[in-house]
Amino acid sequence: MSVTRLLTIAVDAMGGDHGPAVVVPAVLDFLAQDPEVAVTLVGLRSPIESLLLASPIYGSVRTRIALHEASQLVSMEESPVLSLKNKKDSSLRVSINLVKSGAADCCVSAGNTGALMATARFVLKMMPGIERPAIATTMPSIRGPVYVLDLGANVDCAPEHLLQFGIMGSILATSPECPQPSVGLLNIGHEAIKGNEIIKRASELLRTAPIRFHGNVEGDDIYKGTVDVVVCDGFVGNVVLKTSEGLAWMLGQMIRTEFNRSFWTRLAGAVALPVLNRFKRRVDHRQYNGASLLGLRGLVVKSHGGADAYAFRHALLYAVTEVRSNVLGRIQEAVQERENLAS
Amino acid sequence: MSVTRLLTIAVDAMGGDHGPAVVVPAVLDFLAQDPEVAVTLVGLRSPIESLLLASPIYGSVRTRIALHEASQLVSMEESPVLSLKNKKDSSLRVSINLVKSGAADCCVSAGNTGALMATARFVLKMMPGIERPAIATTMPSIRGPVYVLDLGANVDCAPEHLLQFGIMGSILATSPECPQPSVGLLNIGHEAIKGNEIIKRASELLRTAPIRFHGNVEGDDIYKGTVDVVVCDGFVGNVVLKTSEGLAWMLGQMIRTEFNRSFWTRLAGAVALPVLNRFKRRVDHRQYNGASLLGLRGLVVKSHGGADAYAFRHALLYAVTEVRSNVLGRIQEAVQERENLAS
Repeated sequence: MSVTRLLTIAVDAMGGDHGPAVVVPAVLDFLAQDPEVAVTLVGLRSPIESLLLASPIYGSVRTRIALHEASQLVSMEESPVLSLKNKKDSSLRVSINLVKSGAADCCVSAGNTGALMATARFVLKMMPGIERPAIATTMPSIRGPVYVLDLGANVDCAPEHLLQFGIMGSILATSPECPQPSVGLLNIGHEAIKGNEIIKRASELLRTAPIRFHGNVEGDDIYKGTVDVVVCDGFVGNVVLKTSEGLAWMLGQMIRTEFNRSFWTRLAGAVALPVLNRFKRRVDHRQYNGASLLGLRGLVVKSHGGADAYAFRHALLYAVTEVRSNVLGRIQEAVQERENLAS
Repeated sequence: MSVTRLLTIAVDAMGGDHGPAVVVPAVLDFLAQDPEVAVTLVGLRSPIESLLLASPIYGSVRTRIALHEASQLVSMEESPVLSLKNKKDSSLRVSINLVKSGAADCCVSAGNTGALMATARFVLKMMPGIERPAIATTMPSIRGPVYVLDLGANVDCAPEHLLQFGIMGSILATSPECPQPSVGLLNIGHEAIKGNEIIKRASELLRTAPIRFHGNVEGDDIYKGTVDVVVCDGFVGNVVLKTSEGLAWMLGQMIRTEFNRSFWTRLAGAVALPVLNRFKRRVDHRQYNGASLLGLRGLVVKSHGGADAYAFRHALLYAVTEVRSNVLGRIQEAVQERENLAS
């Protein structure tokens, strides 16, 4: 009689600005919602255990929670190189080890991005045929979520890297609702003659790839949902993400100021509140929490460091979706096919 | 007895998506507001004249309007190289000629950006000491307008070019209210070790320049108003601008959808309308219309091609402010000083 292991996520319980205080409640809520998932919490026993025991949900999901001790912590400011060298028993590293050993299908951490990337590359290694890892996440668009990569793993990219990002992104975005995602290359004009030499060459390579390549897209196409996947180098992707965060923040501040200007505007604000709240929920960035570290021989998901429990639950959901849709296996297959074609 | 010429702007009356139908009314309104400016309208006599004569304002400003005929038009899609070769009597080119000859202090065009840049470089030539022109404009921030450059003139930049952009941007942003603008270099982290080799070297160069260099900034710092001037290459700048346009558009669409959902939400929208309109006016992108082509031996201002009369008037105001603050003379001085220091 064979025993099938549940889909298991290793969760770095100590990562992020708030550590277990956010991670543990998020995990408990998530497990209560999805009965086919198990979680291994990685970190210091005492704070994790006290949070588990204090929760009314714990009793009903305890058979699907394991605790794996790790004695060290990686701080948010720590140098990736030093943490790799000196923190061999950190919650971040041990979570990745569990993916490496096969004890977990994926790991999720809200910890230091640089350390997570460096450690994941060191422990898991790159997938053969992929030279650079990429960070990918979804951003909102008028037509639903759009995948964007790379968001900052690579400050310089060769055309071949952008091609690999396009292939990985296409696989990541594939779902029953979107069986053939369209892929766009972020550029400063739609015409093929636009952009620098790297972009022009990447565009040629993407045109020959086994994906639905749309061609060049511009910054506004992200939010128009012109394509399902937007490919760019990590410098540009990071600037896109931060610029968008900044603009959304500024608009939010300004709208708040206008509604707080006087008694009458506050009254108008109270009347409009249900509508404004609905709008707010629709664009709530916490729903988009969760980024993939792609190109490694294992699945690693990064949560925003400042995530609250609601946002962290979305990162867990993101991770589970990646495992269920076999992103890793399908990337491996695609890379293998390309190598077979080339040889 | 010497006669002082009024500050004179050469205006490409045929440029943009709407041509004279937008440009002529905007010029008339602008002249009615500022009695110390004269405008030379450049283009086809007949459409310009009939619009002038049809306006009730024309009589009161006619002594400050001249018409300079130009027989050709450059379309918005035309190749910059071909227009430079074949359109020697275009309204775009003749407007720039008027700056070259000294008949105008600045020219304003809503025409084809590539053709405007190529023609301006050809006719006016680069300023000695500046290798690349840059496109600069203001973007809104929570603390007021922020200058950003380059927005698309250069898809690849060497560190020296970014340094020159920093110096030009600092001069452009200088005003009585902001005598010593702070300058930031757009990067993917605040720390000096972040970014690619070009950015790191540019940061070192900017640190030694005679400007108030703040250091690295990130995308969200634009909207936080962390610095007065943000420097980046034209690829990144263009993506920032287009991404921001896209996000603002999407949020506007979503808020409209939410208020249109039902009778009750429409009612709430009516109550909130004055507040929402005030917010809308505050973030109205038309107020930010007008971009400088910097580094040339003459002032050229680009208006958005789709500008309406309100937006085009802002481009005229932007141009007049540049002339009055002697941007050209001050850039020349700064470049001269650096050359003297170097020799």
